[in-house]
Amino acid sequence: MKKWEDKKWVSAQRLQVDFNYAMAEFVGEDNGVSNKEIRGLEPRAKTVHNQLLKKRSQGALAFYDLPYEEKEAARLVTAGRKIGRACRNFVVLGIGGSALGGIGLQRALNHPHYNLLSDAERKHRPRLFFADNIDPDGFQGLLDILDLRETVFNVISKSGGTAETMSQFIYVRDRLIKKLGKGGHRSHIVVTTDPEKGRLREIAEREDYLTFPVPAGVGGRFSVLTPVGLLPAAVAGIDISMLLAGARDMDRRCRISNLWKNPAYLNAVLYYLTDTKKGKPIAVMMPYSDALYGVADWFRQLWAESLGKRTDLDGNIVSTGQTPVRALGATDQHSQLQLYMEGPNNKLITFLVVERLRKRIPLPESFADVEGVGYLGGHSLNELITVEQKTTELALTRNKRPNLSIIVPEVNSFTLGQLLFMLEVQTVFAGGLYHINPLDQPGVEEGKQFAYGLMGRKGFEHKAKEFAERPKKSGKYII
Amino acid sequence: MKKWEDKKWVSAQRLQVDFNYAMAEFVGEDNGVSNKEIRGLEPRAKTVHNQLLKKRSQGALAFYDLPYEEKEAARLVTAGRKIGRACRNFVVLGIGGSALGGIGLQRALNHPHYNLLSDAERKHRPRLFFADNIDPDGFQGLLDILDLRETVFNVISKSGGTAETMSQFIYVRDRLIKKLGKGGHRSHIVVTTDPEKGRLREIAEREDYLTFPVPAGVGGRFSVLTPVGLLPAAVAGIDISMLLAGARDMDRRCRISNLWKNPAYLNAVLYYLTDTKKGKPIAVMMPYSDALYGVADWFRQLWAESLGKRTDLDGNIVSTGQTPVRALGATDQHSQLQLYMEGPNNKLITFLVVERLRKRIPLPESFADVEGVGYLGGHSLNELITVEQKTTELALTRNKRPNLSIIVPEVNSFTLGQLLFMLEVQTVFAGGLYHINPLDQPGVEEGKQFAYGLMGRKGFEHKAKEFAERPKKSGKYII
Repeated sequence: MKKWEDKKWVSAQRLQVDFNYAMAEFVGEDNGVSNKEIRGLEPRAKTVHNQLLKKRSQGALAFYDLPYEEKEAARLVTAGRKIGRACRNFVVLGIGGSALGGIGLQRALNHPHYNLLSDAERKHRPRLFFADNIDPDGFQGLLDILDLRETVFNVISKSGGTAETMSQFIYVRDRLIKKLGKGGHRSHIVVTTDPEKGRLREIAEREDYLTFPVPAGVGGRFSVLTPVGLLPAAVAGIDISMLLAGARDMDRRCRISNLWKNPAYLNAVLYYLTDTKKGKPIAVMMPYSDALYGVADWFRQLWAESLGKRTDLDGNIVSTGQTPVRALGATDQHSQLQLYMEGPNNKLITFLVVERLRKRIPLPESFADVEGVGYLGGHSLNELITVEQKTTELALTRNKRPNLSIIVPEVNSFTLGQLLFMLEVQTVFAGGLYHINPLDQPGVEEGKQFAYGLMGRKGFEHKAKEFAERPKKSGKYII
Repeated sequence: MKKWEDKKWVSAQRLQVDFNYAMAEFVGEDNGVSNKEIRGLEPRAKTVHNQLLKKRSQGALAFYDLPYEEKEAARLVTAGRKIGRACRNFVVLGIGGSALGGIGLQRALNHPHYNLLSDAERKHRPRLFFADNIDPDGFQGLLDILDLRETVFNVISKSGGTAETMSQFIYVRDRLIKKLGKGGHRSHIVVTTDPEKGRLREIAEREDYLTFPVPAGVGGRFSVLTPVGLLPAAVAGIDISMLLAGARDMDRRCRISNLWKNPAYLNAVLYYLTDTKKGKPIAVMMPYSDALYGVADWFRQLWAESLGKRTDLDGNIVSTGQTPVRALGATDQHSQLQLYMEGPNNKLITFLVVERLRKRIPLPESFADVEGVGYLGGHSLNELITVEQKTTELALTRNKRPNLSIIVPEVNSFTLGQLLFMLEVQTVFAGGLYHINPLDQPGVEEGKQFAYGLMGRKGFEHKAKEFAERPKKSGKYII
């Protein structure tokens, strides 16, 4: 029996959402959501639910189907194992949605200092790197520590036109050819891209690279459960079948139209209402867990890029979108909490709370005679981090700062699959509430076209000209 | 001649602030600051300037004097070298202001994969770690990869009462004693704390640890130029004398009362006016540089904890404070830019722009026949990241999104010293504009006291009781 077929185990591994402290009963009508306000959204929620069902059945929300691609996952496990055996470094060349999911999985599910472990401790799996920026100092710094003969690069770009990733690719390919000879470079490059279209697909076929598909209809920020996120995870030995099983379990919970029973819908409603009715334009996600900090970063793209829109579906100017902020407990109690407690009451805070950590660190009875230190003895770091989360939550609530907790029984592939899937559904559902398109990103086009123009890409000469004719800066505003 | 005495070199290394695109002329009166508004603040700025001068002369703003502690810096260089020779791992145990400055320096000034370099490549300096959280999985993960016999722990807590750091300390001390015998642990612990007071000072003297002082009157978030930040930097071979020289150079620029000539004051005015008059409660700091991302994180504490205050100096409820957000260029163009361009116009964006990077990565003329890839050949990653910053800046400006650029000629100790010092002065000056106390953090007390109560610290039994009597959560708000 697969673990995820064990009902008792599954039920003990289910995420919970505790939204008590986001409610008006606890933080007042001005800052918290009332029962009545949620009920008032029920008809709208029903409509959005039906729209999602319809889109889903039309294949327009393909991310919903990914958890059921079990055969594809099994193929990825095999491919990942094979690639992992053949190299000592596996480097993702990708940016945004092509990197954030993989980073989140690695950070959550592997050792926190994975790349510093010995080969044996890594079970002879390769070290894993994500080159998600084009800063020459950062990129050269990464190349400094890699022996190219032992390195495989995974070029990830759905469209095949991402300037940053294609630049990294042509540079790395050139270095590989110089080192290993023309043809020798082939086995050092694997490509994840559209199964049919695009320049990277064209190049991969011409050069005969091993390729993996990003299924049609899955955008970058919803691609963590495609080879984009799963291949690096498989290479690093992460149990990707369990990830999909967790996502399937959450999918069942997210098919319920009643938003009081659907954690993704309910979260979306809370964020939407606090943003639009309670003046909270900022959504803080604060895991009390080093492992889940990467998920907060992944969510930051998902929420910002999906919901930050100028126009709604009818063409009205709306300029929607909460600003997502990631914070880390307990660390940021010593950095951001002062502002969250006393500053403007303009945030909804979502804690990610892990009930059972993997390790236990007991505190010895040292310096029992030193007041302010001795009391720690006999406790554990586990107790301390739990206590700090609970007390922060209460202190915020007393200050009328709305907050909710996503409770994760333990961090493993099954719970992570649930968490990622829930946040994806929450995002498209929120898109419905805001009445915007959560799947596009038209706002980044203008900057891109200017960049094409300045980099001399054909057809963008007019943008270079437009750039040159920009309003001139004044020297008096430079000091 | 010291490099910083070379006027020509110094002048080429000076930071500039370009605030054209934060001005109404470029982004309109609704979003940008006008000449008139800045001039309107001049009398107030003069008052604040005089208040700062007075406080400084009274020793109440001791961070101002740190750049002049050249002898102390020389001692730290010697001590750092000695400690560095005696170990293979140097681990900071500290949280918030005890870690963020050190992390920022290391990230900016050492190799991006410093801990993965060989001993020889690190010039036989130790690997450097910052244990700034109490997550047992994260902390145990760090201990997994350390041979305690080769490790020195730097316990940093000004007050000596930081529960997180003291917990880490007593656990590590116990492990060291078990491994090395009582007494054998002494040379593996160095302490940075108040020179006279506090429990950590008391313990350090009792146990005879090597200690370093945090000067009186310097709070955690202003302590990067004390041994808090400088000792780890010195151990890792960073040129801390140049850091101080850079800070001194900036101090000279920040003594000018005319805010049109004082970059720290001018920045503070821009942030203050966009927050209070233009409806921008969010301050994004977006370096186009991997190296400077840690500075954005350090600034996040400085700005949030200093300015996020419930009451002003007269006791009025004001609830001030912009929410600082860090973003990374070019990476976050694929994550946050969509929101910044099209979402609510509620942000002031500060770019950190590096003019000359250390490395150059040229792009080969590959796939010249593939449209959308071929155009990259003959350019460089350096050009691409510069073009992306400039085009993003322009696209934002066209969308009436105010932004400014701090231009860093190159990332080195001298420019970093300038940058950190400028941001510190900017923060205390902004505190004056908001008429709040930028040096305290009363809002975190309540949560701390609850935590003491729950951890059984003497004198906090009433807080445990109060916690137990908190309003009960309802099961219907948990799904």
